[in-house]
Amino acid sequence: MRISVLNGPNLNLLGQREPELYGSKTLAEIESLVREEAKRLGAKISWFQTNHEGELVEAIQNLPRRADGAVLNGAAFTHTSLAIRDALLAVKVPFVEVHLSNIFAREERRRHSLFADLAVGVVTGFGAHGYVMGLQALHAALRGD
Amino acid sequence: MRISVLNGPNLNLLGQREPELYGSKTLAEIESLVREEAKRLGAKISWFQTNHEGELVEAIQNLPRRADGAVLNGAAFTHTSLAIRDALLAVKVPFVEVHLSNIFAREERRRHSLFADLAVGVVTGFGAHGYVMGLQALHAALRGD
Amino acid sequence: MRISVLNGPNLNLLGQREPELYGSKTLAEIESLVREEAKRLGAKISWFQTNHEGELVEAIQNLPRRADGAVLNGAAFTHTSLAIRDALLAVKVPFVEVHLSNIFAREERRRHSLFADLAVGVVTGFGAHGYVMGLQALHAALRGD
Amino acid sequence: MRISVLNGPNLNLLGQREPELYGSKTLAEIESLVREEAKRLGAKISWFQTNHEGELVEAIQNLPRRADGAVLNGAAFTHTSLAIRDALLAVKVPFVEVHLSNIFAREERRRHSLFADLAVGVVTGFGAHGYVMGLQALHAALRGD
Amino acid sequence: MRISVLNGPNLNLLGQREPELYGSKTLAEIESLVREEAKRLGAKISWFQTNHEGELVEAIQNLPRRADGAVLNGAAFTHTSLAIRDALLAVKVPFVEVHLSNIFAREERRRHSLFADLAVGVVTGFGAHGYVMGLQALHAALRGD
Amino acid sequence: MRISVLNGPNLNLLGQREPELYGSKTLAEIESLVREEAKRLGAKISWFQTNHEGELVEAIQNLPRRADGAVLNGAAFTHTSLAIRDALLAVKVPFVEVHLSNIFAREERRRHSLFADLAVGVVTGFGAHGYVMGLQALHAALRGD
Amino acid sequence: MRISVLNGPNLNLLGQREPELYGSKTLAEIESLVREEAKRLGAKISWFQTNHEGELVEAIQNLPRRADGAVLNGAAFTHTSLAIRDALLAVKVPFVEVHLSNIFAREERRRHSLFADLAVGVVTGFGAHGYVMGLQALHAALRGD
Amino acid sequence: MRISVLNGPNLNLLGQREPELYGSKTLAEIESLVREEAKRLGAKISWFQTNHEGELVEAIQNLPRRADGAVLNGAAFTHTSLAIRDALLAVKVPFVEVHLSNIFAREERRRHSLFADLAVGVVTGFGAHGYVMGLQALHAALRGD
Amino acid sequence: MRISVLNGPNLNLLGQREPELYGSKTLAEIESLVREEAKRLGAKISWFQTNHEGELVEAIQNLPRRADGAVLNGAAFTHTSLAIRDALLAVKVPFVEVHLSNIFAREERRRHSLFADLAVGVVTGFGAHGYVMGLQALHAALRGD
Amino acid sequence: MRISVLNGPNLNLLGQREPELYGSKTLAEIESLVREEAKRLGAKISWFQTNHEGELVEAIQNLPRRADGAVLNGAAFTHTSLAIRDALLAVKVPFVEVHLSNIFAREERRRHSLFADLAVGVVTGFGAHGYVMGLQALHAALRGD
Amino acid sequence: MRISVLNGPNLNLLGQREPELYGSKTLAEIESLVREEAKRLGAKISWFQTNHEGELVEAIQNLPRRADGAVLNGAAFTHTSLAIRDALLAVKVPFVEVHLSNIFAREERRRHSLFADLAVGVVTGFGAHGYVMGLQALHAALRGD
Amino acid sequence: MRISVLNGPNLNLLGQREPELYGSKTLAEIESLVREEAKRLGAKISWFQTNHEGELVEAIQNLPRRADGAVLNGAAFTHTSLAIRDALLAVKVPFVEVHLSNIFAREERRRHSLFADLAVGVVTGFGAHGYVMGLQALHAALRGD
Repeated sequence: MRISVLNGPNLNLLGQREPELYGSKTLAEIESLVREEAKRLGAKISWFQTNHEGELVEAIQNLPRRADGAVLNGAAFTHTSLAIRDALLAVKVPFVEVHLSNIFAREERRRHSLFADLAVGVVTGFGAHGYVMGLQALHAALRGD
Repeated sequence: MRISVLNGPNLNLLGQREPELYGSKTLAEIESLVREEAKRLGAKISWFQTNHEGELVEAIQNLPRRADGAVLNGAAFTHTSLAIRDALLAVKVPFVEVHLSNIFAREERRRHSLFADLAVGVVTGFGAHGYVMGLQALHAALRGD
Repeated sequence: MRISVLNGPNLNLLGQREPELYGSKTLAEIESLVREEAKRLGAKISWFQTNHEGELVEAIQNLPRRADGAVLNGAAFTHTSLAIRDALLAVKVPFVEVHLSNIFAREERRRHSLFADLAVGVVTGFGAHGYVMGLQALHAALRGD
Repeated sequence: MRISVLNGPNLNLLGQREPELYGSKTLAEIESLVREEAKRLGAKISWFQTNHEGELVEAIQNLPRRADGAVLNGAAFTHTSLAIRDALLAVKVPFVEVHLSNIFAREERRRHSLFADLAVGVVTGFGAHGYVMGLQALHAALRGD
Repeated sequence: MRISVLNGPNLNLLGQREPELYGSKTLAEIESLVREEAKRLGAKISWFQTNHEGELVEAIQNLPRRADGAVLNGAAFTHTSLAIRDALLAVKVPFVEVHLSNIFAREERRRHSLFADLAVGVVTGFGAHGYVMGLQALHAALRGD
Repeated sequence: MRISVLNGPNLNLLGQREPELYGSKTLAEIESLVREEAKRLGAKISWFQTNHEGELVEAIQNLPRRADGAVLNGAAFTHTSLAIRDALLAVKVPFVEVHLSNIFAREERRRHSLFADLAVGVVTGFGAHGYVMGLQALHAALRGD
Repeated sequence: MRISVLNGPNLNLLGQREPELYGSKTLAEIESLVREEAKRLGAKISWFQTNHEGELVEAIQNLPRRADGAVLNGAAFTHTSLAIRDALLAVKVPFVEVHLSNIFAREERRRHSLFADLAVGVVTGFGAHGYVMGLQALHAALRGD
Repeated sequence: MRISVLNGPNLNLLGQREPELYGSKTLAEIESLVREEAKRLGAKISWFQTNHEGELVEAIQNLPRRADGAVLNGAAFTHTSLAIRDALLAVKVPFVEVHLSNIFAREERRRHSLFADLAVGVVTGFGAHGYVMGLQALHAALRGD
Repeated sequence: MRISVLNGPNLNLLGQREPELYGSKTLAEIESLVREEAKRLGAKISWFQTNHEGELVEAIQNLPRRADGAVLNGAAFTHTSLAIRDALLAVKVPFVEVHLSNIFAREERRRHSLFADLAVGVVTGFGAHGYVMGLQALHAALRGD
Repeated sequence: MRISVLNGPNLNLLGQREPELYGSKTLAEIESLVREEAKRLGAKISWFQTNHEGELVEAIQNLPRRADGAVLNGAAFTHTSLAIRDALLAVKVPFVEVHLSNIFAREERRRHSLFADLAVGVVTGFGAHGYVMGLQALHAALRGD
Repeated sequence: MRISVLNGPNLNLLGQREPELYGSKTLAEIESLVREEAKRLGAKISWFQTNHEGELVEAIQNLPRRADGAVLNGAAFTHTSLAIRDALLAVKVPFVEVHLSNIFAREERRRHSLFADLAVGVVTGFGAHGYVMGLQALHAALRGD
Repeated sequence: MRISVLNGPNLNLLGQREPELYGSKTLAEIESLVREEAKRLGAKISWFQTNHEGELVEAIQNLPRRADGAVLNGAAFTHTSLAIRDALLAVKVPFVEVHLSNIFAREERRRHSLFADLAVGVVTGFGAHGYVMGLQALHAALRGD
């Protein structure tokens, strides 16, 4: 089972960026946690971060050739990018949406998501741990559990 | 560690009720899954379901004496009950909000929650498996992981 | 043919309660009219009134075992209770929605209904006579007329 | 007792027009049902259909000279014609509003009515049978039942 | 100077129609008042009333050949007819808008006008007298006073 | 018959102020026109202009002792001053509202009026001539014409 | 003079519940203050608290037989319960609405009340003291002061 | 292949009517262009213009007997007539919507269409040429190109 | 203890002004009631009424030098004056907001207040008696009761 | 005549991407159709597709040096990119907007366009054929037909 | 070059008034800074502050006779006074709008300005220094830099 | 002191692009003005322009290592890019927002900014001069003036 983890803008700053909201773990540390859990589950991870909407669109366009499913933290693009939504609609690869902070406790404009209704499900508010939860849930869904 | 699982209206009908949305497992079957995982984690579960808003208010009022945290699926009350929100505000017991269906893919009125901004985090769209994820995440949060 | 007539909050006050809006007949008098018409149609009536949302949820949950269809006057719950809507969605028993006053001539908040789109049809504004009309229409619908 | 039945635009197409919404009976078949019931009640029916708003305005203006009450299915004009509302306000003839489909289950723009708050009451969702119900209810109201 | 007075739907009922709002004068009586004043001013009146939107559209289309200006009481069409607005935009004949009742004191939907921003000016609330005022003001405007 | 003409803020600048909107006549010239017409009608005019909301409130409070009716051009206060509305509600002196420009052809915020529903009627868009029309209409209304 | 004091959901938690908003007095302590003042005024108090909407509906339904007036703190139901509004409309017993916190300083959803327009008056923001003020004001109103 | 071209209100004024918006060609000139192109394509044109909503409703009702498809420029009715929408829904004849001006560059109320979502497609902003484009596109669609 | 009572526009008309809303007591009579109660409480009253927003702004600016607290009935300014809100924010003197009528039972625009969230609390609907209640409550608050 | 055809995000997936909405032709196949028609018209085509907003901004910035006009299918950027709108405003090169699907029949957020009011015209809903129509219409417009 | 600096309500309290928002400098100290910079630029300053809207209206009406341009801090009137907007529209004297606090970071009602679209430009958020910036920018604009 | 000047999309077209809105100076000419003033102030400028949102995100992410503050003209991204807002929130480097045109005088969608509430202050409407003002104000703010 191949799983792609896709990270949107400013997630490369994790650890320094508003740690009271996003936690003190860096993105590299989260990647380690996810790879560890993937090993346990027998899944293969590919990891991607970008600050460019177009690159995220293309990473999603490439999913059918490279992965069985995806864990997606679109960050700010979650609330603004119809192009990414269109890519998700086009490829129809199953994915789980993850957010570090609890988006229900954020300001109005971050409470809706342009991707979430297309997802298998959403995990929000559990910090770095949410990535592991997302991976597990996607793994279970792909196995048809 | 004592964890209370609180279930709102019509969840007693699970299995028969719109299975394409809520899955084919009964609430009793979900309870078994949760108790099993709790055993593995060394946590003690109390389980509650009600169709009466006032009873859910009082179950939450009693949490401080009976549990270290809660997994809450408020069902329809999630979108209408300010009284339950007030009870959650009053007791300040940490809780995880769980929904069987992906509320982001439901009609407008089910996409916002009156409780979710008070929660540690939210798990939505993974069916019965979401209860187990919620339990694990709450357990981790209570241990300070 | 078994038909359940379900009445929501404050309908126990009929006759005294704003008679210019709701008419001067008591709920017992309406019940008599309905039972009389049911006898004529060869249908069996069960009659229920409650001021408690949870009890109405459960009365609806029990419909599949007790009735072939329902006449529902949800009163104030019509405009606020998503839990009752969920119960109606869960049991899928055919029902007719009845209102004593003409809800189109009421204030804004009473002009929409959380149940009506699930109903076979709606009868509103004919006072006590509306219950009889609802019974007849439900009877015809259940017979496939 | 003279009762006028007034039908708005496109109702002349009944039977062919979206039968899943409006049923398979033609307007002539509905007219027969209504005339039959009127005979039973001892009422005299005049029947009218038009696709022209101005003609419906004038049919309503003529009501005081020709009928004791009206059954009105304004079809699309229900949601757009202030001129018909004004005619109804002017003549003050009692009328019952009837819709074949359940307008509460239609799209937003069909859920409000420009006439309904002026009606004795509204019957919606019972197909052709709704005309008969409307006739009966109007008959009862005119007799002061 | 030729002036056309155009009257919209239900104005043929004046005198009987909600006299507390629209006054007790009939349209014929208003016509007399207007013709009298026109004689005084040396203007020639053509008078028109219709309940049909299309006829009012065409009356306006014919204005350039028949009149130097118009007094328009569009009645209910004032609030709904974009086709009449388009006719007014097409012919560019100067006109004064008149309303019998004070539209600022009516319900929300009657407080805006689809024609008024194209008018020389608007006179509202002075009953039959408003037609005379409209005639005088149009006469003055056409003379360049 | 005593009639008070009340003018709101910036009307002292008439003639210079946006003449394409408000015309080239000064307020003094308009006052002359009004006084001339009043003489013809046998009415006595008192004339008032202020840029201060409080002074206009008090001028209205004094109306019952000083005038039988008022012609009011509230200018910008028309759209913002609830205090002036309250004064008009308190004294209940009949008044006609006048605007130089056609407020229906102005930007959104000038299309509603806080006073107009309390007026006998409104005259808008006829420039200086509108004051004379307002005076005539008020005079007729006070005489019960 | 018999006065009923009716308390809505979560008020049983007063003293512990968000004391910075609701004060540090328990509901029992407030009851003492109210009974003391009632004794001074010569009024008889009945005291009621519930977390169940249906029970509050029925307590209000019973008012005509048990009290001359009521002091009502509906808590969260103030903003959501149309059923309680209907009960208040039905019984027409005079009541004063009281809130411990200043609802004008709360979040948007708590700034409107479904009951307040039916009340004699509203007292909000004075903590426990507001109950005493409400009692005094109701007492004065019932005596016709 | 028979194609009906249906034109709504005020299009009979083309050439004179706001030529900066709608161009300087008359409707007769556009008809010539369309007939010429139709000849080239081997299609038979029937041409219709009306200022009466009811006549357009009936022209559409007659389409199934008279045409294989339609080119529709509803003009002002595009934005207001639910009755025409209902006729289009009833007959289900394929049609192309055409507008002379670019409705996306018009005022708010002209930017939405009550018919366009039912059309094969929409052509807007190309003046008279748009009719030819609409004809070609409809022709291709009917041939299944 | 020095308490300033500040009254906004049109309150000088009390007694005559819409007595069904505001009661039949004059402002002078209310002043007497308040001074009497102040004497009982040992507080010193300064009394102020103005129809000018700027004067109320300055009266509030002077509060720190002249009073320990204020009772404020801003009347119409309550709903429109941001300048008065800024003055209240600037001086931070504790105040109680009072309204004679029940603003919750008034039209929409009077149901919100620009000052109330800054007040200790609000008393609304008790007529002249509300001033006395406001004085008592402020007195208690200033003493720390 | 040089014409640039500019394609936005995810159009590189045509053929596979939601073919029920966007048709089964690939973008290369559409390019062939367009080049063929251009040859017939004697126009020179440059073809461009990108998933990056910035690249589309720059392609538009380069238009004045490279093309006489453009055919633009902005895809998802149509509904979100103000930067592309600004580029179109800056270069003022005439363009035709094309959409494969009928955007009037899509969800709310796809029904408005940030570019369309700047276009010569819009063609929407004719699939691949729309590109050919757009090319023809642009060609005609540039030749001043 | 004569420049008038106009200050709105509550700015006379600067230094004491919410210093965390508006800074600790008094208005006199800001006046000194501005006069100093004006001396350097060779401009003559007239300085004005008022808490009365009418006085600010009149100060603006007098600008053409007294100043070549103005620096305006309308304070709370910025968000509520249409009368001041009308005065600015009438005199057409160039002005720069200045705010001490960053109005984009304030609550919703302070984020829009009724004057700013008429200004040369706006400076907001730089405290007392903003007045100097405004003076410099106005000076440059008046010199045509 | 190192100051970074960051320019968003289409600013590379300055001088040609809508000069009536944005002025006739090129971006290079503005850069010269800014560098000159920076020299005077003893500050070091780095200059950046991009049409790619992702590049602006990354330029902002790099600010902490490269600059003490920034002058930001986000152009169209100001109104649409949540990703840039997140970058600004992450790095917390002080910045001044500058706009060439007066955004308060632009269309609705350009009147709000996604960055401005995070800025030290905003300068809008002074053309190229605004960059110099922004530099000076930032310089003063960084020195703690």
